[in-house]
Amino acid sequence: MADIQAIAKQFTDFYYTTFDTNRQGLQSLYRDHSMMTWEGSPIQGAAAIVEKITSLPFTKVQHKVTTLDAQPSSPTIPSLIVSVTGLLVIDDSENPLQFSQIFQLIPDGSSYYVYNDIFRLNYG
Amino acid sequence: MADIQAIAKQFTDFYYTTFDTNRQGLQSLYRDHSMMTWEGSPIQGAAAIVEKITSLPFTKVQHKVTTLDAQPSSPTIPSLIVSVTGLLVIDDSENPLQFSQIFQLIPDGSSYYVYNDIFRLNYG
Repeated sequence: MADIQAIAKQFTDFYYTTFDTNRQGLQSLYRDHSMMTWEGSPIQGAAAIVEKITSLPFTKVQHKVTTLDAQPSSPTIPSLIVSVTGLLVIDDSENPLQFSQIFQLIPDGSSYYVYNDIFRLNYG
Repeated sequence: MADIQAIAKQFTDFYYTTFDTNRQGLQSLYRDHSMMTWEGSPIQGAAAIVEKITSLPFTKVQHKVTTLDAQPSSPTIPSLIVSVTGLLVIDDSENPLQFSQIFQLIPDGSSYYVYNDIFRLNYG
């Protein structure tokens, strides 16, 4: 599981750094058949997913990862499920929001793309 | 996506009702190659997973699902990823704990088994 954890860490470091500094840059991580469920709303395809992400109404955001778990998601290909819980600091708010996010990453050459993405805010 | 949501709802209703009334009964939902990550600790196989679940140190537990999302997890087989967030009421505590749990369900005849299971408590 060591490699899986390292891949998950590398992916989430890149994903959230890109989200927090240049949301448009996330588009290369998705494909036309990628799925996102954002707060219960389904969105299909890289263009629509990144349009959603870039339209979120805040100017400054910071993801702080609290827990990161990963497992192989298939017995036949080296895909993985990544589960993140963490805090979202929006526009320097002093009250960060808890979130949970799940990705399924599919190998693509020497890299991975996001096939599944489910995001939820967790209200206490 | 309607069928996927209905399957996810039916599965989680059954899973958490069984967890809350007869934890041993969960064993039939896992296989020898099933994986669980419980609060960061990896566990492999139906017997070990249910041993972990039945050894949890509370006598009464109630899962209350807050959000439930599901997506197809493969372009080739009708497997699905299910993401749950909710509250865990332990021994009638007045302070329920937030949890998030992810399952990947794999079709098996007319039913499904759990291939991936990742559980986390979310501390505020």
